[in-house]
Amino acid sequence: MNEKLILHLKKIFGGNRVLTSRTDRMTYSYDASFATQLDPKEPEVVVIPQSTEEVSACVKLANEYKIPLYPRGAGTGQTGGAVPIKGGIVIDLSKMNRIVEIDHQNMQVIVEPGVVQADLNQALKEYNLRFPPDPGSAKMCTVGGMVSNNSSGLRAVKYGVTRTYVLGLEVVLPTGEVIMTGGEKSKALKSVSGYDLAHLMIGSEGTLGIVTKLRLKILPLPVTRGIVLASFKKLEDAGGAVNATFRSGIQPSAIEIMDVNCMKAANMMKPDLNLPDDNEALLIFEVDGSKDEVTAQVHRLTEVVNEYSVFVKFSDEPLECQTLWEARQIVGAAVGLLNPGGFRVYGGEDICVPISRLPEVLRSIQNIAESYGIICGIYGHVGDGNLHTGPVIKLNNKVEVVNVQKMIDDIHNLAIEMEGTTTAEHGVGLVRAEYMEKEHGPALELMRAIKKTMDPNNILNPGKMALPN
Amino acid sequence: MNEKLILHLKKIFGGNRVLTSRTDRMTYSYDASFATQLDPKEPEVVVIPQSTEEVSACVKLANEYKIPLYPRGAGTGQTGGAVPIKGGIVIDLSKMNRIVEIDHQNMQVIVEPGVVQADLNQALKEYNLRFPPDPGSAKMCTVGGMVSNNSSGLRAVKYGVTRTYVLGLEVVLPTGEVIMTGGEKSKALKSVSGYDLAHLMIGSEGTLGIVTKLRLKILPLPVTRGIVLASFKKLEDAGGAVNATFRSGIQPSAIEIMDVNCMKAANMMKPDLNLPDDNEALLIFEVDGSKDEVTAQVHRLTEVVNEYSVFVKFSDEPLECQTLWEARQIVGAAVGLLNPGGFRVYGGEDICVPISRLPEVLRSIQNIAESYGIICGIYGHVGDGNLHTGPVIKLNNKVEVVNVQKMIDDIHNLAIEMEGTTTAEHGVGLVRAEYMEKEHGPALELMRAIKKTMDPNNILNPGKMALPN
Repeated sequence: MNEKLILHLKKIFGGNRVLTSRTDRMTYSYDASFATQLDPKEPEVVVIPQSTEEVSACVKLANEYKIPLYPRGAGTGQTGGAVPIKGGIVIDLSKMNRIVEIDHQNMQVIVEPGVVQADLNQALKEYNLRFPPDPGSAKMCTVGGMVSNNSSGLRAVKYGVTRTYVLGLEVVLPTGEVIMTGGEKSKALKSVSGYDLAHLMIGSEGTLGIVTKLRLKILPLPVTRGIVLASFKKLEDAGGAVNATFRSGIQPSAIEIMDVNCMKAANMMKPDLNLPDDNEALLIFEVDGSKDEVTAQVHRLTEVVNEYSVFVKFSDEPLECQTLWEARQIVGAAVGLLNPGGFRVYGGEDICVPISRLPEVLRSIQNIAESYGIICGIYGHVGDGNLHTGPVIKLNNKVEVVNVQKMIDDIHNLAIEMEGTTTAEHGVGLVRAEYMEKEHGPALELMRAIKKTMDPNNILNPGKMALPN
Repeated sequence: MNEKLILHLKKIFGGNRVLTSRTDRMTYSYDASFATQLDPKEPEVVVIPQSTEEVSACVKLANEYKIPLYPRGAGTGQTGGAVPIKGGIVIDLSKMNRIVEIDHQNMQVIVEPGVVQADLNQALKEYNLRFPPDPGSAKMCTVGGMVSNNSSGLRAVKYGVTRTYVLGLEVVLPTGEVIMTGGEKSKALKSVSGYDLAHLMIGSEGTLGIVTKLRLKILPLPVTRGIVLASFKKLEDAGGAVNATFRSGIQPSAIEIMDVNCMKAANMMKPDLNLPDDNEALLIFEVDGSKDEVTAQVHRLTEVVNEYSVFVKFSDEPLECQTLWEARQIVGAAVGLLNPGGFRVYGGEDICVPISRLPEVLRSIQNIAESYGIICGIYGHVGDGNLHTGPVIKLNNKVEVVNVQKMIDDIHNLAIEMEGTTTAEHGVGLVRAEYMEKEHGPALELMRAIKKTMDPNNILNPGKMALPN
């Protein structure tokens, strides 16, 4: 990048918010994905905007000089989505993190993209309100990143994905122009006026524009919750229990599954849990609502699940619920114990398949892992069919490093064959671009046409999502 | 339209499904909007496809000869959205009405666009399932129309709008090409792979493509419901009760408001209702769930509402609930009685404003109506801020015909001034195109650019939504 451009950027951002040192650039060269950890890519410069005007000025500059521009939130992504694979500029939005307005009367907030999910919910707590989408990275991830990836999490089965809560977005387009979706000055909770451009932006992973302000719907905090934990001899029994739950009319706020390896791992980390790890599957149901509602639901759910399981525990007491829920909370970290000294690989970790296919898919993933000699645990949001595979390898073992990547490819292809998708909530980014054609067929050409219309110079997050390179 | 094209169409559809008689064409010249009832526009020809291939062949022909093509469902729209204002071809999708698959295990259905909402729900009933979005026209409207307008209805406050339930769409693009959104062969319940083109299509009112198949998410039927009916001296008290309900953490499945005129009208139609029409507002809350949950919610809700209201009735008994709910059910028809022999006008009937502005907006609409000497009742989905205004005029009174149109314009402008939108669930179509610029500012240009990219010859539903003419 030539000096002239750096000078331009310093004019926009001031000296302190234009980073060019090697150390600074390295920090922005990877995310949580295995692919970018193996092969990081540094930007030429990092800028840190504090306002929409600065973002707009920077985008205009990049567009004029045709420089790749990579928007980044907290960098918690698992797809390389924010990694500058063609160099250029990283625009770090994490300092645009003001909560502009909590409009509790109108059940909405206006925030900047760099606000962390947990910080927003902390601020909402005193109004007895919350922003429901809850990815595992809620304590670190930004709401801008959540919208760009259409994140979801444990409670999507009841509360829906991030998309459900987006009322309007201020967006800097690839030309630098600023638009407001969903009405220039609207605070309406519903609108069908015009194409809903917010919904085109959501999940577009920073390739169509940079979100600089978000108008988000919020909901009341549930009063309390209950937990039902059940273990199943066979994976098929767990599938049966999930189906019976839906048919009973009960709407759990979460239905999580853990395979035998995950139970073993959780027991290693917390022996008190004493999970029955001679069975094939564990399900953890959460229900929420008022005290009376929760008690009623926990009892009905226990009855339904009991027909399929060999072991059930339940509670509607907050402290006991916390203990039962712990198994699910620690599993992400615990899988590391399956291979002591090993490294938890993120890749092939986010497939989603039809619920009826889950037992077959879980077994297939176990077989794939075994065939490559890779140790892994499988857990996930079974109510949505969303499975997280957690392979753990030794980074100094070259064979494992190669094999885990073959395993990842097999899992992605398996998902598509099983009428599923390679990604339920993490996104495509760099690491799943190669499956786009297979998954979408001719629809991919329309995505490319839209990208070309909105970003004719292909400056925003180029090289991702199988869009033009 | 020349004979050659009619022959082409007959080759595609056979003689019986190409309609050219005056009577047939008249049937397709208007919808439920006042504007098109005053000024209907006939197509040159109507075609009735039975397959995606026929739709595609017809679109290709229209694109080649640059003939306007207007997709139509049941014609229940209130915006002129399906009316052929530039002549050409109307493509009537109501006969593509097969329920292709009810996949209850995977909580989804695959249907053709012409399936009527109520028919789908009738078929789902035996599985104890339902497709939740419930517009007032549920017994007539097609799911294709619901998706094209992103319809909602009474229960959107709990269950969300039509968009929430769309998993994938088969779409014939303006070039005739067929794509499948959300994965070519997917049955996943969640996916973030690629741009979500379904969400661009939803609400695009047939201007970007013709939906020929829909993959829709379904939910369990709630076991039972409860009703709380409360009346308020002042509109502000009703607003306070809605806000207090949200803050209490109760999630009603509907919160409906009726103004004093609506109460009077309902009492005229059903004197047994005996609604307290000396008060300014009536709220009707519905809650749903299991028997225990409903009983708990009804009692809590009654406590909350009681602090604001002068009169409360509640029930969790099905028969009594039916009676209490009747007030809301008949109001659409009852407003006609406010002006005996009058005609219920649809126009300015679908604004949505921030909840906190509702009392002010309700009063303003009443004042606007009075200033033009127009009789109307106001009701709506108050939990979303969505108000339906029902003016009733004498069609042979020229002054009223002119004044009601001025009133409609004032209501639309009021909605935008009050940080709302001109349309919450009915759409833009013909009748709200003039407000698009004011509502969306520079975002409108992006909508136009997308339209141009996808439909370069502007053949699909031209003349609507302030897109290119």
